[in-house]
Amino acid sequence: MKERDSESFESLSHQVLPKTSNGESLSHQVLPNTSNGESLSHQVLPNTSNGTHMIQMAMANSGSSAAAQAGHQDQPDRSKWLLDCPEPPSPWHEVKSYVKGSFLTKLKRFKSLQKQPLPKRTLSILQAVFPIFGWCRNYKLTMFKNDLMAGLTLASLCIPQSIGYATLAKLDPQYGLYTSVVPPLIYAMMGTSREIAIGPVAVVSLLISSMLQKLIDPEIDPLGYKKLVITTTFFAGIFQASFGLFRLGFLVDFLSHAAIVGFMGGAAIVIGLQQLKGLLGITNFTTNTDIVSVLRAVWRSCQQQWSPHTFILGCSFLSFILITRFIGKKNKKLFWLPATAPLIAVVVSTLMVFLTKADEHGVKTVKHIKGGLNPISIHDLDFNTPHLGQIAKIGLIIAIIALTEAIAVGRSFAGIKGYRLDGNKEMMAIGFSNVIGSFTSCYAATGSFSRTAVNFAAGCETAMSNIVMSVTVFVALECLTRLLYYTPIAILASIILSALPGLIDINEAIHIWKVDKFDFLALIGAFIGVLFASVEIGLLVAVVISFAKIILISVRPGIETLRRMPGTDIFADTNQYPMTVKTPGVLIFRVKSALLCFANASSIEERIMGCVNEEEEEENIKSNAKRKILFVVLDMSNLINVDTSGITALAELHNNLTQAGVELVLVNPKWEVIHKLNQAGFVSKIGGKVYMTIEEAIDACFGLKV
Amino acid sequence: MKERDSESFESLSHQVLPKTSNGESLSHQVLPNTSNGESLSHQVLPNTSNGTHMIQMAMANSGSSAAAQAGHQDQPDRSKWLLDCPEPPSPWHEVKSYVKGSFLTKLKRFKSLQKQPLPKRTLSILQAVFPIFGWCRNYKLTMFKNDLMAGLTLASLCIPQSIGYATLAKLDPQYGLYTSVVPPLIYAMMGTSREIAIGPVAVVSLLISSMLQKLIDPEIDPLGYKKLVITTTFFAGIFQASFGLFRLGFLVDFLSHAAIVGFMGGAAIVIGLQQLKGLLGITNFTTNTDIVSVLRAVWRSCQQQWSPHTFILGCSFLSFILITRFIGKKNKKLFWLPATAPLIAVVVSTLMVFLTKADEHGVKTVKHIKGGLNPISIHDLDFNTPHLGQIAKIGLIIAIIALTEAIAVGRSFAGIKGYRLDGNKEMMAIGFSNVIGSFTSCYAATGSFSRTAVNFAAGCETAMSNIVMSVTVFVALECLTRLLYYTPIAILASIILSALPGLIDINEAIHIWKVDKFDFLALIGAFIGVLFASVEIGLLVAVVISFAKIILISVRPGIETLRRMPGTDIFADTNQYPMTVKTPGVLIFRVKSALLCFANASSIEERIMGCVNEEEEEENIKSNAKRKILFVVLDMSNLINVDTSGITALAELHNNLTQAGVELVLVNPKWEVIHKLNQAGFVSKIGGKVYMTIEEAIDACFGLKV
Repeated sequence: MKERDSESFESLSHQVLPKTSNGESLSHQVLPNTSNGESLSHQVLPNTSNGTHMIQMAMANSGSSAAAQAGHQDQPDRSKWLLDCPEPPSPWHEVKSYVKGSFLTKLKRFKSLQKQPLPKRTLSILQAVFPIFGWCRNYKLTMFKNDLMAGLTLASLCIPQSIGYATLAKLDPQYGLYTSVVPPLIYAMMGTSREIAIGPVAVVSLLISSMLQKLIDPEIDPLGYKKLVITTTFFAGIFQASFGLFRLGFLVDFLSHAAIVGFMGGAAIVIGLQQLKGLLGITNFTTNTDIVSVLRAVWRSCQQQWSPHTFILGCSFLSFILITRFIGKKNKKLFWLPATAPLIAVVVSTLMVFLTKADEHGVKTVKHIKGGLNPISIHDLDFNTPHLGQIAKIGLIIAIIALTEAIAVGRSFAGIKGYRLDGNKEMMAIGFSNVIGSFTSCYAATGSFSRTAVNFAAGCETAMSNIVMSVTVFVALECLTRLLYYTPIAILASIILSALPGLIDINEAIHIWKVDKFDFLALIGAFIGVLFASVEIGLLVAVVISFAKIILISVRPGIETLRRMPGTDIFADTNQYPMTVKTPGVLIFRVKSALLCFANASSIEERIMGCVNEEEEEENIKSNAKRKILFVVLDMSNLINVDTSGITALAELHNNLTQAGVELVLVNPKWEVIHKLNQAGFVSKIGGKVYMTIEEAIDACFGLKV
Repeated sequence: MKERDSESFESLSHQVLPKTSNGESLSHQVLPNTSNGESLSHQVLPNTSNGTHMIQMAMANSGSSAAAQAGHQDQPDRSKWLLDCPEPPSPWHEVKSYVKGSFLTKLKRFKSLQKQPLPKRTLSILQAVFPIFGWCRNYKLTMFKNDLMAGLTLASLCIPQSIGYATLAKLDPQYGLYTSVVPPLIYAMMGTSREIAIGPVAVVSLLISSMLQKLIDPEIDPLGYKKLVITTTFFAGIFQASFGLFRLGFLVDFLSHAAIVGFMGGAAIVIGLQQLKGLLGITNFTTNTDIVSVLRAVWRSCQQQWSPHTFILGCSFLSFILITRFIGKKNKKLFWLPATAPLIAVVVSTLMVFLTKADEHGVKTVKHIKGGLNPISIHDLDFNTPHLGQIAKIGLIIAIIALTEAIAVGRSFAGIKGYRLDGNKEMMAIGFSNVIGSFTSCYAATGSFSRTAVNFAAGCETAMSNIVMSVTVFVALECLTRLLYYTPIAILASIILSALPGLIDINEAIHIWKVDKFDFLALIGAFIGVLFASVEIGLLVAVVISFAKIILISVRPGIETLRRMPGTDIFADTNQYPMTVKTPGVLIFRVKSALLCFANASSIEERIMGCVNEEEEEENIKSNAKRKILFVVLDMSNLINVDTSGITALAELHNNLTQAGVELVLVNPKWEVIHKLNQAGFVSKIGGKVYMTIEEAIDACFGLKV
């Protein structure tokens, strides 16, 4: 197959070779896909809405063979094509076609289904909503063996992490376990990723506790706080599902990659600082999350009361976990060692506390964990709370951060395995996981960085590993919760601490610094904002910097001077290509920004006038005679739009140039730009001097003079 | 002179004609300004910083005559030029060179002065700071005759308007007159406009009263309110002068033209509504400026108490002023009639009230106006107020709005007379006018739309007309204030009302609607915001919409499919040019937005993949055989920058295309883009397949295949 393709392209490549020695063949060259003798003008007929194009087309076509020999004689016609191009779609039209595009494809697919018989139709719809019906039909026993191993490994990491993250979210430990039962099941049915491990994660847990405890203090009113968390989870799920349903995935893109790297790094340090409470066995702690408040609280507590036993216990098991991770990295076959190390730590430390009765000597333990399956929590959804607006806002933030994490981790592993994630389906799956989760006492779940990596390393094949993990956690909830009574809290802290280095990506930060200083500014803004102010302020700083950058770059007032590249008809920036050469009598400028608008139009106009005056002065000094600039060619190919201020500035430029005896010529304006210039009457004001290329413009300029 | 130029260009135009039949002459063509036999490679030596360019240059140059005959054989070298271009200036470097450019020119000018003898040096510096020393040396008696007439006409309009605007600003009437004495004098010495008439204006007066009366109620604490106004004026002046000094004129550009049209229209209606108080003789009025509050207050007052005498008086004189304006428009020679009508109205109505003793029958009059020259008010500047932050903010808003109005009106009349305004000097002049004004009991002054038009129509020649006006107003303050005791307030209201239609520019609004729907949205946003919320909210809405538009357009995720224009090597958007034709085996895309960044990178990547898949499906259906897309050419000429997310998306696109057996080729990346792609190692990842033009890229693609 491949061979035949390259053969057929051997002949094609001859066709597209430009400027063959005999001009005659050119008109044939540009006729693709026409084996019969139909001429080009017939081909384009269906596409042209108004008649003028067809006529010009026919003219251009009939003259094309001659044109190829004689050079650029037919160029003025092309500038007519430019001026008479059809009207561009209005913004309203673009929105409409976007919405249509999103929903019509779904509708079409649905309609095409209606022709099929009922069982097949049902199956197709089921498969579209629940991808599990697609892959489980080809599911084999060997795959299950791999998934079982991966799921069990996952569970051994998940149980201690879940309990730890629940305490980070200021919830009772069992809520972490609940969150590892229901959402993974829902996700396994609806998600398209094969590796992602769903459950509670560190950053979302931090977000929940840091933002919600301002509304209700969990230590004063734990029930009210729990209701708040459940309601927030519901909102987050609804937001996520609707992002997927209405194809609003781009909302997730509003956090730039750099901002996320900075945010995650800052959040990891904040989470780490929070663990100092557990690791040091401090009782009085601050509810603020910024580094200054936390360190002050730690300093104050350390002077009064802290538990050295707890600290030694926590640190030694932290070292154990980190060493196993180091071994696992050196020897890829021992991947199960770091994955099970947290569980081993929990078991060993629990035994130690139980045997030494350390809990009577100041080592705090988890105490009672309520066992049994997730209780129903629909009655906990509270829409009459006065905090509803706040909850919705927090739900939105959590929805976006959770999706960002899940999609980032899902995409990177899908990339390794070479398949594509459907972003919208992912958002639906995670959204529904959280909505159903909020009915069953779960808090916000998403894809975990660390556990997904373990799942992948353990060789999972499908989302079945999530189901295995879910079942294992369920069994643990039923049978093993009483065994965790003596588990020291310091161990949970050290398990969370051990997961944090994965969130701090210093290499990526260095890479961003190297490639894009402005991106790095957003990164540092988010990092410092999270660390020294609060999670929300960090996010806000990152978003503001990211968008300020877009504005700055798009409207940065700058012009480039273009000159001819030697031996070509290409005109390029003199700074980028120092080998370019001048064309006497003509100055060619290109606007550096993407928009000619209120924010930059008048300074760009001033700069062009300044350049023209400077150039004339220079020429006069150099040649001692008065040599004049006769034409200013403005290459508009960069501009994707102008506004009314931009057009006013162009008109002013034209007036000023005319007074100086210089003609203004425009080159290659984009569709919307030429349309607006036409509408505003600017094209007729400059006598229709608009050309497709700089070459054509210069030819036309001097052609008129001769 | 002109003739000789065109002659010399006749010969030049031969030089720049591209693709002459003998390729030999091409290398001579591109050698501009070299009459002696020096070769091109010598010419470019000083410009090239690293050696590789020089070598490539020499290669390209030596081969150029052959290249012109053989077509595009030397293209791969050009793609090397692209890849090895020098490093673009960093953002930091750009800021530095901007600052340098701003101040070095001043420094240079100053240094060049130092060589001159002392008297000449002093004069030059004086002329630079006070342009009056420039033009007054050539001032002639005939010019003074014109300026005297214009100044007197101006004064007759200015006196009633100033009193009216002072009441709008909730100050005693004499403050309006004070503001028409000092600022015009200062401006006449420092300003560069010849027509602009400086003094109090409606919109700034409204801004002052609407924003400052929230801090101190002028009816409860008039002295405190006066201090507030004087301090705000000082701040506004300082801001304006520093904008001029530090060349920050672009800050004034942050209000788009459309936003100003909407804002002015809304403000005019708000000012008109405020005049209902004077026109109806209402005593209890609201301090809010939004239309709903004002109309409710009017409605409530009308049911209780209003003065029919006042209303009839006001309306009849309003009609008189409007009729004279109509006559003045029909017959341009009678321009003095609308200009003096307000003064006539004041004189006649004052006489009427005096004779009929209408003030004893409910017609409110101005009462006592304090006469005499501006008192010194330096002691009124209050920097210890708790409102200092608020005052500075309001000062900034007033500074920007006032400058916007002055520069807009100054530029439009300078345009008519064919000279250029120096924006920075204008800002300095108005700024110093207000600073000195704040020392002499003036409130914020700026260039007035209506009075500048009168000044122009009255035939002013220089800023001397401002001096004449200032002296006249000063005389009036000394001698005539007692005569204004019986002037009815309704007349002042009708004078203000008569000036408002000039602020509402419906034609411009229609024009903006036609040219740019999004600009119109900013216009309507500002209009509705001012009308229904408050002046500040209107401005905020306008700024937010304007910048949201920039972001939306710059990062709108869209791609264009390019095809070859028949008979050329130009590739253009298929939608804009329906006559373009396909090149088989190749898909050419161009990104529609200006940035490939976090906000659009992944959707652009998805769209390109979608197009590739669609195209392959279509081809397969059409030809019944498997015809494959072999290359995707991505034209990057639109992109002015990428960020790290953009590079990640490109890498993902490359991976996905490679998996589908398609090669990715980049064309014409801008300086900063290619630099970042190089830094991130993306160029080497795609095997250096980066070309200058689409034509070259296609040639290279198929050249490799053959």
